[in-house]
Amino acid sequence: MTTDAGPPAAGPSPVTVELLGVLGYGELSAFDRLAEDARAAPTLTGRAQLSTMAAAEIGHFRLIEEHLGASGVAIADAMAPFVTLIDSYHASTAPRSWLESLVKAYLGDGLGADFYREVAGWVDPDTGDLVRRVLADTGHSAFAEREVRAACEANPHQRDRLALWGRRLLGEAVTHAQRVVAERDELAEFIVLGSGAKGGVAGLIKTVQVAHGRRMSRLGLS
Amino acid sequence: MTTDAGPPAAGPSPVTVELLGVLGYGELSAFDRLAEDARAAPTLTGRAQLSTMAAAEIGHFRLIEEHLGASGVAIADAMAPFVTLIDSYHASTAPRSWLESLVKAYLGDGLGADFYREVAGWVDPDTGDLVRRVLADTGHSAFAEREVRAACEANPHQRDRLALWGRRLLGEAVTHAQRVVAERDELAEFIVLGSGAKGGVAGLIKTVQVAHGRRMSRLGLS
Repeated sequence: MTTDAGPPAAGPSPVTVELLGVLGYGELSAFDRLAEDARAAPTLTGRAQLSTMAAAEIGHFRLIEEHLGASGVAIADAMAPFVTLIDSYHASTAPRSWLESLVKAYLGDGLGADFYREVAGWVDPDTGDLVRRVLADTGHSAFAEREVRAACEANPHQRDRLALWGRRLLGEAVTHAQRVVAERDELAEFIVLGSGAKGGVAGLIKTVQVAHGRRMSRLGLS
Repeated sequence: MTTDAGPPAAGPSPVTVELLGVLGYGELSAFDRLAEDARAAPTLTGRAQLSTMAAAEIGHFRLIEEHLGASGVAIADAMAPFVTLIDSYHASTAPRSWLESLVKAYLGDGLGADFYREVAGWVDPDTGDLVRRVLADTGHSAFAEREVRAACEANPHQRDRLALWGRRLLGEAVTHAQRVVAERDELAEFIVLGSGAKGGVAGLIKTVQVAHGRRMSRLGLS
């Protein structure tokens, strides 16, 4: 938004808009999938918990929307280029059970947080603040951790199947992220420059893999 | 929650727990329906707006959950008796188009607010405060108003069909509310006592009808 009092503030760069478009549609689509999965909850308590996780995604989405809006960028325009690929990720990872839903919600939230954490230092200070605010708003996933751990402890066969599921989620996320970057030269360059000594896209994937492994352990899946 | 320092605070009465159970499941099921309707939005902007309305229902739900939880009542237990009837309301009013979704979201939010407004004065002060906090958290519905008005102005046939839909929503809501009350003597008595000179259940319905008519006007549907 501009005012009559002076020149408009420098908005996010085009590549930052792309990045926020990916994150924004990531949140909106996660909301949609979590809300659908919540419907299949075996208890009202579980349904309320997953619905609360879904609603938190919209809280994040709104922060990104306001941030872009302040620079005159409509979030719908920023998100549009990424809808097909992110929808394709969700289509390829549709949970077939309540426990698969919980594992996906938990690991998906974690993957998102990893990504936010890495990029927070690569963007302009205002966008960095936004990203840190989104990161600070967590704590909805203890429920998923508890439920999945309990199910795994009770049934080793279940644990093995969910461990496979967790690895598949990471694989699909990485494949789809690579496709996003492959289609966007500026985004690839931004990651290479941002990650610096950490080794570009490959380094970012490695970082995410290590954190994913830790989350698998917390779920009792390693 | 009780402390060692003294006797537990007086919690909500059994009939207040019933009331909060109705409201709580009303919010949780509204979240679920709005999230599903959001998926059918014709634009990303519309999808984000309806998703935001859905997330706001979870905000209300959480306030009720915390309030009941502070008195040691699990919201799942308070809601359980009302799931079938409220689900039946939603099944009988499934929108068949995006505009029907918006009309239902807008009028449904209004019906909820009417009900909160009436009962805020009939309950214990703590619960009354809660109800007023929920009421104060509004302002997500301007979008629905704008979209529906524009569609009605552009197409009188559309307006007539949506006006019928709006009247049907009120009819179904009243029918289902009467069934809830008919099965719960204490709730009926609570409303009769609370409404006093306003005329009990019939008076409450009349109040809601008048407010519904005003909302229909704001949508351009009268």
